[in-house]
Amino acid sequence: MTKQSSLEALAKATKQVSRGLPNLTTESKQRILREMAAVIETSTDEIRVANEKDLRAAKEKGLSSAMIDRLTLTPDRIKGMADSLREVAELPDPVGEIVETRTRPNGLKVQRMRIPLGVIGVIYESRPNVTVEATALCFYAGNGLLLRGGSEAFHSNQLLVRLLKKALESQGLTDAVNIVPTTSRETVDEMARMDEYLDVIIPRGGEGLIRRVKRVATVPVIAHYKGNCHVYIDDSADLTKARNIVINGKVQRPGVCNAVETVLIHKAIAGKLLPLLLNDLHEKGVEVRGCERTRAYSEKVLPVTDEDYATEFLDLILAVRVVDSLEEAIDHIRKYGSNHTEAIVSETPGNQDLFIKSLDSSAIMVNASTRFNDGGQLGLGAEIGISTTKLHAFGPMGVRELTTTKFVVFGEGQVRN
Amino acid sequence: MTKQSSLEALAKATKQVSRGLPNLTTESKQRILREMAAVIETSTDEIRVANEKDLRAAKEKGLSSAMIDRLTLTPDRIKGMADSLREVAELPDPVGEIVETRTRPNGLKVQRMRIPLGVIGVIYESRPNVTVEATALCFYAGNGLLLRGGSEAFHSNQLLVRLLKKALESQGLTDAVNIVPTTSRETVDEMARMDEYLDVIIPRGGEGLIRRVKRVATVPVIAHYKGNCHVYIDDSADLTKARNIVINGKVQRPGVCNAVETVLIHKAIAGKLLPLLLNDLHEKGVEVRGCERTRAYSEKVLPVTDEDYATEFLDLILAVRVVDSLEEAIDHIRKYGSNHTEAIVSETPGNQDLFIKSLDSSAIMVNASTRFNDGGQLGLGAEIGISTTKLHAFGPMGVRELTTTKFVVFGEGQVRN
Repeated sequence: MTKQSSLEALAKATKQVSRGLPNLTTESKQRILREMAAVIETSTDEIRVANEKDLRAAKEKGLSSAMIDRLTLTPDRIKGMADSLREVAELPDPVGEIVETRTRPNGLKVQRMRIPLGVIGVIYESRPNVTVEATALCFYAGNGLLLRGGSEAFHSNQLLVRLLKKALESQGLTDAVNIVPTTSRETVDEMARMDEYLDVIIPRGGEGLIRRVKRVATVPVIAHYKGNCHVYIDDSADLTKARNIVINGKVQRPGVCNAVETVLIHKAIAGKLLPLLLNDLHEKGVEVRGCERTRAYSEKVLPVTDEDYATEFLDLILAVRVVDSLEEAIDHIRKYGSNHTEAIVSETPGNQDLFIKSLDSSAIMVNASTRFNDGGQLGLGAEIGISTTKLHAFGPMGVRELTTTKFVVFGEGQVRN
Repeated sequence: MTKQSSLEALAKATKQVSRGLPNLTTESKQRILREMAAVIETSTDEIRVANEKDLRAAKEKGLSSAMIDRLTLTPDRIKGMADSLREVAELPDPVGEIVETRTRPNGLKVQRMRIPLGVIGVIYESRPNVTVEATALCFYAGNGLLLRGGSEAFHSNQLLVRLLKKALESQGLTDAVNIVPTTSRETVDEMARMDEYLDVIIPRGGEGLIRRVKRVATVPVIAHYKGNCHVYIDDSADLTKARNIVINGKVQRPGVCNAVETVLIHKAIAGKLLPLLLNDLHEKGVEVRGCERTRAYSEKVLPVTDEDYATEFLDLILAVRVVDSLEEAIDHIRKYGSNHTEAIVSETPGNQDLFIKSLDSSAIMVNASTRFNDGGQLGLGAEIGISTTKLHAFGPMGVRELTTTKFVVFGEGQVRN
């Protein structure tokens, strides 16, 4: 068999098994997830051996320390993966839920029933824990899963899937989770075009990967693009809230998509806020790049460029701009933003409202940190990522966002006139 | 300007205006829709003149009478378009609806708010009434709309959009609806790749058009594929219900996607049902293509092929097969179906339930005609089509399905630990 036909066979097998998943009881899905967790934990040593192979290759290739950190599976992280399986098993099971019921004048009872999407393709890069987290969420939502991991984590991912399958075997569900056995570039393109077998593809990784998948895909894609997130500080802002929210958004975990990248400050509050805020930021080691008006408050502020405004720094770097009005802040965000997360710090309900209504980002925070745009924080439980595609699921995607609904109609022989 | 850049300018202008649409009040949207209806009605003569041009060209090109019928705008159909605008104005406005509210342990109030998708691209073929219906639904849901109609209806479509814009002008919203000013093939491809401006593309037309759009698109596509719909008649079926549902599904309007194309009959009821049903069908002029066991009941039944089972006849032709069990019927539908609409006629709740759970079609009818899979019939109001894509909207897409939700989070200065 050629590589191509073997990938197709894998997708077909996944689709085949996925047909039966909607009929699994919640209890049996929970039992399987807990069994997966147990297998992962008891295989800690074996996982570390496989992971070591990946780490050695990564060091030989000279990957960055950040890449190597993302790749590394410590005993703690392995326990973390097992815990994530158990946590998903505690969530409400979305499958079969009746979302809506109405009775039509002709007596038809019309229901919307939540059903799995079918088979989900996840294409991801270096972090091997995605293998386990995606399995937990997709399986619990009743979906088949076809994984295609990055070459850096090859040995770790292949072993993890073999271990997860152990818990599926006894139920005859081995093919509910599969992983592409190679990491050649072509497998990405081939997966993206398998609309006969895959119902959606979720690419997780850099912008290059996501754009490539979108360009070639015939399967629907839910993209998780970058987060160029903003905090706007209104003239009516509470200074303490403003300072806390900016510092938390930038410093608490700068390398993630819901970290803040640009702060916009109303000119009427700049004089009171900026001396304090710039001091906070510099104390925390943040490099500030500011507009002319910002730079008047500190010599340490570097000049900002248009390119900075468009950049997701993912680092201790922050762009700061003083604006004349809320409207100017909105225009700035529309121009440079990525529809991910924006926050307003304001004590004026009318301004909060205008900000909320004028921006079409996946989450708008009012007097709260951008860092709360996260499935766990918003109460969805674990998430498979934060969608910046408006279609289907906008924002954090939890287990419910991995389902769809179909109509179920009960009649007594009704026909149409 | 080249053609390409003028299309991009059009999309950009639509995007620009769409930013303000979420802030329109329900009343002003309703007023605009009613004004559109009035303009359409008072322009009946002008519309007929433009339509005549299209009809003359169509006849010269030798288009089929079915095509010409779809293209024709009679005074009645023009009034129908005006009525569809007024009907949409009566629907509940989905924009701004708070779909969900929860309070987190840290005091954050997390809401999901319904928002427009942004700009919708509709690529369609011959029927000019789509121009008006798509405008009504997309505009009321707060979306910008970029239309790309077929060459056959060019003059009708261009005039209709000019008329619809008259009601938008006074509000400075002229660009909320635009139509591509040419019908060259390349405009389809160019639109499908404008993900900077378009949030979704809905292709309405033949399978060739839909596949083409999906292949080239980087914009998310909601496909409305064919409906190869089935009726399964269980051994416990009520004979009268079964006969009515089959006849209604095949005969009442054979040219539509929710018409029935194959009937599957449990062997235990075939002896009682088939003589009556075949008689019904032949009386109504239906050509029946049946399996060996079906053909035993009437000499007029032609032999059925595998290709017939896979065909959406859209005509007075029906495939009939006797099956050994409900499971065999499910397998048949999984093999040949198109995830559109399936019906079961059965008095056994357990069998109804297995049928419902085993098939992932957009609508499952229990003792009711497949013809009910329609936005109006299911209580959604007008529809822009019936999606066979599971993502976002599966089944009829009404005004609510043209929106998405974003998170709105209210805090009092909360930050993340």
